[in-house]
Amino acid sequence: MHAYRSHTCADLTAANVGDTVRLSGWVHRVRDHGGVLFIDLRDHYGLTQVLCDGDSPVFDQVEKLRSEWCVRIDGEVRARDESLVNPRLPTGEIEVYIRDIEVLGAAKELPLIVFGDQEYPEETRLRYRYLDLRREAMQANITLRSDVVASMRRRMWDAGFREFQTPIITASSPEGARDFLVPSRLHPGKFYALPQAPQQFKQLIMVSGFDKYFQIAPCFRDEDPRADRSPTDFYQLDMEMSFVTQQDVFDTIQPVIAGVFEEFGNNRAVDQDWPQISYADAALWYGTDKPDLRNPIKMQIVSDHFAGGGFAIFAKLLEQPGTEIRAIPAPGGGSRRFCDRMNAFAQKEGLPGMGYIFWREGENGMEAAGPLARNIGPERTEAIRQQLGLGTGDAAFFLGGKPSDFEAVAGRARVEIGDELGLTEQDRFAFAWIVDFPIYARDEETGQIDFEHNPFSMPQGGMEALEGDPLDVLGYQYDLSCNGYELVSGAIRNHKPEIMFKAFEIAGYEPDEVRKRFGGMVNAFQYGAPPHGGCAAGIDRIVMLLADEANIREVIMFPMNQRGEDLMMNAPSEPEPDQLMELGLRVIPQD
Amino acid sequence: MHAYRSHTCADLTAANVGDTVRLSGWVHRVRDHGGVLFIDLRDHYGLTQVLCDGDSPVFDQVEKLRSEWCVRIDGEVRARDESLVNPRLPTGEIEVYIRDIEVLGAAKELPLIVFGDQEYPEETRLRYRYLDLRREAMQANITLRSDVVASMRRRMWDAGFREFQTPIITASSPEGARDFLVPSRLHPGKFYALPQAPQQFKQLIMVSGFDKYFQIAPCFRDEDPRADRSPTDFYQLDMEMSFVTQQDVFDTIQPVIAGVFEEFGNNRAVDQDWPQISYADAALWYGTDKPDLRNPIKMQIVSDHFAGGGFAIFAKLLEQPGTEIRAIPAPGGGSRRFCDRMNAFAQKEGLPGMGYIFWREGENGMEAAGPLARNIGPERTEAIRQQLGLGTGDAAFFLGGKPSDFEAVAGRARVEIGDELGLTEQDRFAFAWIVDFPIYARDEETGQIDFEHNPFSMPQGGMEALEGDPLDVLGYQYDLSCNGYELVSGAIRNHKPEIMFKAFEIAGYEPDEVRKRFGGMVNAFQYGAPPHGGCAAGIDRIVMLLADEANIREVIMFPMNQRGEDLMMNAPSEPEPDQLMELGLRVIPQD
Repeated sequence: MHAYRSHTCADLTAANVGDTVRLSGWVHRVRDHGGVLFIDLRDHYGLTQVLCDGDSPVFDQVEKLRSEWCVRIDGEVRARDESLVNPRLPTGEIEVYIRDIEVLGAAKELPLIVFGDQEYPEETRLRYRYLDLRREAMQANITLRSDVVASMRRRMWDAGFREFQTPIITASSPEGARDFLVPSRLHPGKFYALPQAPQQFKQLIMVSGFDKYFQIAPCFRDEDPRADRSPTDFYQLDMEMSFVTQQDVFDTIQPVIAGVFEEFGNNRAVDQDWPQISYADAALWYGTDKPDLRNPIKMQIVSDHFAGGGFAIFAKLLEQPGTEIRAIPAPGGGSRRFCDRMNAFAQKEGLPGMGYIFWREGENGMEAAGPLARNIGPERTEAIRQQLGLGTGDAAFFLGGKPSDFEAVAGRARVEIGDELGLTEQDRFAFAWIVDFPIYARDEETGQIDFEHNPFSMPQGGMEALEGDPLDVLGYQYDLSCNGYELVSGAIRNHKPEIMFKAFEIAGYEPDEVRKRFGGMVNAFQYGAPPHGGCAAGIDRIVMLLADEANIREVIMFPMNQRGEDLMMNAPSEPEPDQLMELGLRVIPQD
Repeated sequence: MHAYRSHTCADLTAANVGDTVRLSGWVHRVRDHGGVLFIDLRDHYGLTQVLCDGDSPVFDQVEKLRSEWCVRIDGEVRARDESLVNPRLPTGEIEVYIRDIEVLGAAKELPLIVFGDQEYPEETRLRYRYLDLRREAMQANITLRSDVVASMRRRMWDAGFREFQTPIITASSPEGARDFLVPSRLHPGKFYALPQAPQQFKQLIMVSGFDKYFQIAPCFRDEDPRADRSPTDFYQLDMEMSFVTQQDVFDTIQPVIAGVFEEFGNNRAVDQDWPQISYADAALWYGTDKPDLRNPIKMQIVSDHFAGGGFAIFAKLLEQPGTEIRAIPAPGGGSRRFCDRMNAFAQKEGLPGMGYIFWREGENGMEAAGPLARNIGPERTEAIRQQLGLGTGDAAFFLGGKPSDFEAVAGRARVEIGDELGLTEQDRFAFAWIVDFPIYARDEETGQIDFEHNPFSMPQGGMEALEGDPLDVLGYQYDLSCNGYELVSGAIRNHKPEIMFKAFEIAGYEPDEVRKRFGGMVNAFQYGAPPHGGCAAGIDRIVMLLADEANIREVIMFPMNQRGEDLMMNAPSEPEPDQLMELGLRVIPQD
């Protein structure tokens, strides 16, 4: 017989009754029923009930077992009494009577109980991660993550992509975050950087003539931690293709992402129609470039109904250039209590408040209520109602000013309203491509034009477009939004050196600066670069959505804590003096 | 029609004759046949001959094309004249007459010609890697690498393993090489390390109850570069299993490795029988722990035939304790010229020389020749011949002393003899498990006992064995050797804290030191650790063997040069002063 097991803890059924078997696993739970010891023996695959009474030659040893001891037992498979069969357990028809036992690994007193759902502080969970990971929910999350990544790989292979590994110890690849640096021993005083993303390398792979690339790529950004972001390394499904348009990228990645959500979504609905929404429309309709389309609310411009009207605040506001009044329709929100609550929400978010109108059943049929309705009068109120398609029992909220000043709050109010009124569908994954991102934005403080997003994207209209107003230039750049999260980001790249230098010039970068920062790529583009584009999908986010978790650390095997520390492994730590010496570095004493 | 291509450059056949098509790719080669321009248009998938004469509306533009320009052409598919059909090319039946053309990316004068086999210095190849990678051999190598890794993944999944990603920015994981350090910004003066291997994490994954782990794992070692080693990051197929013996690991990984060699070995023979050879036997028989078993030569101990014999040097040597005489049989090496050449080889390797005997057809039948035979006389000579199973036309070489002083040279002489005499089979992959590595060795200089290999391996015989002579303790530790390369290394781990502390104590490590260096793992072992073991296979080596390349940089997309520099991306480079400031570091000026 094998040294440790003839079966896993998920294998045995009624068909094995009478067999002599060997199992290994962890003591999940021990129950003493009047001299009979019942143990749920657990391994990665399942649970098997093993038991022992005074007749067993090893009763004394079994009595000493405690939770999470790792043991090997030999015994015989017995049918359970019909009344004791557990239909929820694959092994629920049988139990194993223990004839022999070996303690493979004893356990000290546990700082964290594996059995059950007791909650523990994150520090405890991360310090004893190996115990935390034994818990059912974590086993499921980490298994899910592995299966999601495997499925992505299969789908990319099936779509004709090959995976290529790009360097990890390399040059800085500015993506807007801080680089992690790695001091070089062979070249003291010089540093490598860990890639924030393999962006430049994947573009170089295209220039090298490999048509379709993907990678489950480790990315490194020295960012301050937050719940949905890893403070150190994280993984993306990174892909790039040559000789493609934006639509080709969409057509390639949509089946991969949709397929993964269908495969692992646990029967939650997966939208098949992925609308393409311009960045400008997304801002107007949803107040964000990562809209949650499960929420049916779409904001609208209602400036006309307030211009020159009786609500002086809005009427005066509209006299200033660049201002608008936008409405958030709230079907079913037609009560003063709800409207006041939303108004308070806006105040909490830093706005003076949100005006509102709601419609109720009055003595003469439907009537509009709220101070705003009184101020602008019934005609304008009715025109608003008709534009928004609302009726009795509904409400509308209004925000005014420069859109950039209130758009984000409007977006959050839309989410709040959708949630509060139960309008936002559950158990559904709703996707939208956000397209036509502007290439440039003007820095409000300095008045300078700078890149709004990725400087490597191809401007729509090419060189010609760059000769007009930079703020009008849109890029072949896109994000995929799902349930309010940005899952994917990508672009058709600017592969023409002359357009690239021009694009950087507009943002204030001299050619020498461009060559210094992106020399590898710029040089390569001078030797027959193909048009190319691609995208990168955040794996942690996708798994978070599928696992229905709100914290990234629930779907990472060994995450850092919020201070960028690994308490289990004691990282970061003080280096040995001779390590610093070899690297030619000195630590500056901190105050 | 698609913006860039209706077909790839490998698609068109006689069935497409008459079609109007669009192709994109690179100008591989241009030939001017009296006013008709023939262009081999190349993409990742293949070549298509496109052509153009003065009747084409775009002849003037086509005339301007140069090698490696990236272009899109429209045209019509024509059958080639029967005499011009190229049966070696999938598209060899057709050609495309160019009606329209667009230059997608022009190319400056090339520092490296893609077409043909011209050789370039490595610095040129790495600086212009994107051109080097377009060459046929590099496209094949990198494609092979990707396919090998994909096949490994499929095989591991099929064997019930899941892939889990372990942290990259983490704590030091001492594996005998130098760590790369990463300064922490959140904790100035402290450093993370990049893992030399995920050894501790994979063991923690087992303690966490995940039964079977693998990873195509990035590993980082700050080592001085050499031909078969990357100076920075490299990848291993890393795996670990719980509740297994050494034989289970072999039975699991052998089909994966053998399968990959069969799939990509290009019909070279793949041995199915993988002998298990002890470390001691490997040293004796082959002079190395990575023997090339395609070479049939096995060394033997022949001390008895020299003890007290007429060859004074050996006879005297054998009076010292710990000495041996070993023979390298050389079937077919029976000529003075060959024997003298091998003797010179040993001298070049730093030994005084190798004695030899060879057997030739003399006047009275077979006779032994060479000074050694004369010294020890015919009886002893004949006994040696019989022991080694040699005859007319064969030779034997002899080395004496402490085995550790000559074993390595003997091993290299065996390789040389096998190669010179054509004994070493070609077109074959021969594997051997090397087992029973000693856990400890005595440092010749200090006299101290230290770990010979991996300190985490389980000693055979457990605690009991550790109470005897440390130098007698063997480990459940193993390597896989293939054609003279170490492909895989692994062990059954020491998962018992008390045995681990004892094992370290013997090597001079106090418990506190062990806790400091391996605290994460040692702590974990106190909470119910399962027996576990695994191995790691070097992916670069495997691909090198399959691609029949001798330099690791031929099978890595973007390798560093021998000085650890990326000339294309300019890494490493000087950091910005504020980056150093944020990290709390100062560079010590070098002399």
